Amino acid sequence: MDSLPLYRQLAAHYVDAIHAGSLKAGDKLPSLRSLMRLHDISLSTALQLCRAMESEGWVEARDRSGYFVRRPQRLVIAAMEEPASGLPPDPAQFVNMRTRMANFMARGRLNEVKLNFAISRAAPELYPAEALRNAMTRALRQRPELLTTASSQKGHEQFRQVVAQRNLRVGMTVAPDDVLVTNGCIEALNLALRAIAKPGDTVAVESPTFYGLLQVLESLGLRGLEIPTSPQTGISLEALDLAIHTYDDIKAVVVVPHLQNPIGSVMPDAHKQRLVQLCESHGIALVEDDTYSDLVETEVPPRAIKSWDRTGNVVYCASLHKVLAPGLRLGWITAGRWHAQVEMLKYAQTRNNEALAQIAAGEIIASGGYDRHLRRLRERLHTQRDQTADAIARYFPSGTRLNLPRGGFQLWVELPERLSSVAVFEAALREHMLVAPGAQFSNAARFDHYLRINCGWPFSEAVDAGLRRLGQIVEEGCAAQKSLPASASAATRSPRVAVQSSRARAA
Amino acid sequence: MDSLPLYRQLAAHYVDAIHAGSLKAGDKLPSLRSLMRLHDISLSTALQLCRAMESEGWVEARDRSGYFVRRPQRLVIAAMEEPASGLPPDPAQFVNMRTRMANFMARGRLNEVKLNFAISRAAPELYPAEALRNAMTRALRQRPELLTTASSQKGHEQFRQVVAQRNLRVGMTVAPDDVLVTNGCIEALNLALRAIAKPGDTVAVESPTFYGLLQVLESLGLRGLEIPTSPQTGISLEALDLAIHTYDDIKAVVVVPHLQNPIGSVMPDAHKQRLVQLCESHGIALVEDDTYSDLVETEVPPRAIKSWDRTGNVVYCASLHKVLAPGLRLGWITAGRWHAQVEMLKYAQTRNNEALAQIAAGEIIASGGYDRHLRRLRERLHTQRDQTADAIARYFPSGTRLNLPRGGFQLWVELPERLSSVAVFEAALREHMLVAPGAQFSNAARFDHYLRINCGWPFSEAVDAGLRRLGQIVEEGCAAQKSLPASASAATRSPRVAVQSSRARAA
Repeated sequence: MDSLPLYRQLAAHYVDAIHAGSLKAGDKLPSLRSLMRLHDISLSTALQLCRAMESEGWVEARDRSGYFVRRPQRLVIAAMEEPASGLPPDPAQFVNMRTRMANFMARGRLNEVKLNFAISRAAPELYPAEALRNAMTRALRQRPELLTTASSQKGHEQFRQVVAQRNLRVGMTVAPDDVLVTNGCIEALNLALRAIAKPGDTVAVESPTFYGLLQVLESLGLRGLEIPTSPQTGISLEALDLAIHTYDDIKAVVVVPHLQNPIGSVMPDAHKQRLVQLCESHGIALVEDDTYSDLVETEVPPRAIKSWDRTGNVVYCASLHKVLAPGLRLGWITAGRWHAQVEMLKYAQTRNNEALAQIAAGEIIASGGYDRHLRRLRERLHTQRDQTADAIARYFPSGTRLNLPRGGFQLWVELPERLSSVAVFEAALREHMLVAPGAQFSNAARFDHYLRINCGWPFSEAVDAGLRRLGQIVEEGCAAQKSLPASASAATRSPRVAVQSSRARAA
Repeated sequence: MDSLPLYRQLAAHYVDAIHAGSLKAGDKLPSLRSLMRLHDISLSTALQLCRAMESEGWVEARDRSGYFVRRPQRLVIAAMEEPASGLPPDPAQFVNMRTRMANFMARGRLNEVKLNFAISRAAPELYPAEALRNAMTRALRQRPELLTTASSQKGHEQFRQVVAQRNLRVGMTVAPDDVLVTNGCIEALNLALRAIAKPGDTVAVESPTFYGLLQVLESLGLRGLEIPTSPQTGISLEALDLAIHTYDDIKAVVVVPHLQNPIGSVMPDAHKQRLVQLCESHGIALVEDDTYSDLVETEVPPRAIKSWDRTGNVVYCASLHKVLAPGLRLGWITAGRWHAQVEMLKYAQTRNNEALAQIAAGEIIASGGYDRHLRRLRERLHTQRDQTADAIARYFPSGTRLNLPRGGFQLWVELPERLSSVAVFEAALREHMLVAPGAQFSNAARFDHYLRINCGWPFSEAVDAGLRRLGQIVEEGCAAQKSLPASASAATRSPRVAVQSSRARAA
């Protein structure tokens, strides 16, 4: 026990207290300040203690209130294991996502979809429609020439100021002129990669990662190199390091440090810092896609990777699409040493963004309305995530695994028996449900037995019934697979064994 | 005389009548129907007759009213000559516009600009601000979830329907599903060229052409081949044909058939048709940028090149930015056989467009408000163009030449003595005026002695004074140039001689 770091020893102490019942579900852990005093430890040790307990699912952070003991762990659902980062990475390969995605999307469009678990945002009612509408109507009334004059090339000045100011909260010091407004984060990523790399170059990405990024790589003629990524801590720095030494043509690394899509990981600050150094020392550009950080449920907002950047090697991309208003295409980029190049590319690609959305969003952020919205949104999503995870635990066969992310609206679910998610996708579609099969998130076959399940919609009877039916579909799929004569499925249905069997097969 | 085509003989007859004073400025030419009856000719001959007289400046079309005899020709201002299309075209070259433009733009930003003649749109008060504002406010009120749900991937359905319907007026039959909404025409051009060509490929463009296109080519790693272009009839088909036979790697031709920017040409229908055939027969994609056709002052809207396309080889791009609302970034593309590819590229590049602007614009077009606005806009621009051309004729030294385009808000002015427009740009900037030097519109030095002058703003005393001062700057520049010992400027100041001298030097 003594060989464990101090924060681990203390965490074990509090876990014992939970087991013993002296800390019950809903109880508050001592505050950081109290922990420091109680155990005579530093702030960083107290934070490590809380985060370790949080990532293991014992406690949960609530905005500005501290850490609270969670409800009892789900009975049958096991956490996913860490990826095998010691393995050599996949060879650089040209991704071929577009056709695959086009097929999935066309299949979805051709069928009547009643329950869409494949979607990647929250329900409309979770966003501040009225505040947005009012801000826009006001802007239209107060600025009679808004629609009949061209808007500013870099973006509306007030909005860029608000963004620059907000960046301070995540440790970034940038001037409003360093912020270039784009059509969503996806245009920011396009511009970043066009400025950094040329067709044929290799870009390292997390594996799995969101298909939008894989499509961008393909459309720009870039090769994607998938780096194993932990559901807890994000991209494996060991695997990335190995990849850098194996392939000498990696031009950029793209990561989603906070609530990675689809896996939900949040990179620890120490990892972010090491990643900055690793990229910097090898002359590899680091692109940070920070779409989700405002959804992370922590007491303090997570620090941006860009905050450790001293040389302009980190390109920061973000957007309000998922967090403030899915009806807006409002993103931005702070492109470090590629700034001038990115600005020119943006001008040649789509010119300036329209001003109206920028004015409205800028006002809502500056007024504090955005932060109030975020607190409500995070609470709602927290509840929905728990309800969805509970339903999956209840309805899906044992051997199913998931990690409960620290925010956001999606769950990354590993199916038992390495059941193909494409089969589940097809079966679900026949019953008017859409799920996002794992094959959408990687060019490798590795994630074929995963599903991404949306939990951004209020947990209704229909959602509950849908998840129950999905669980049956998975169960039926597993049974059918087992009945095949050649099936190698000797795994029992105990989650513990499923973990080992999955590891054995993955290796 | 008999060897002339019939319409030419008849045109000479009417020009004689104008000289004789039997037709005076402001008088109406017989209507097309009357002409057919009077001379027993077909509709197409009557149209040829009117268009020939119009392009030579004797008459002008007024919306729905017919052709009217123009005021007396400007006293000192000569028309530009046709380009020498028999010359071999410039070799394919990598354009280097971005740095050049960045310099011009930075120079403009660093100086206080009081009069901007370099701008490429009309004054805010010439656009229907109130109708747009009302349509948007109404859409926000009537659709509570507009901002909190993602909008349609291809574009708002109603807007695409309106566009498809409007296309019928210019001879195009396309389904709403063939219309993909983009962030302005510039994104449409980007998508078209990305789908058609790959880096290193050659694209033929008009010469001169708008610098936005040259920037797009450069940013995509494409080589631009500049084809001589007539101020009257647009791209020289002879020169293009020659270029196609000289270079076997031309992947696409991009043209602005109506009110070409900066030159103001309008392609005759026969040219459009031949261009479609020429491209089709050589397997070269034809990209039509139709940004300005709604500004053409003709009785019937000019037919789109795309209307002759039977094989999907023509890609049609357009936008409302210059004609309805400079504050909106609303364009669209109908990409023929590249449709699926363009749709995927658009999704990977910027996702869908926001719906609000589409709803508002769609409503205004469908309600007839757009056509009413266009009639007013064309009238206003007509007056302003005449006033600006008159001022140039009055204030600029003899030898200055320009063509009065049949619509739009810019004049393309040839300076006497081959005076460098960059020198004029610098001198004007010192007096807080911005002009667009010819060097922005071509990679070749050929257009260094041209200026593009905006006439989209109401002709005020300040504009008049600014043009007077510009004229003095040009005059001083010419005088300084003449006083140089090595000056080859032996040309007299008679416009007629200037024409010849200019031709001799251009050859």
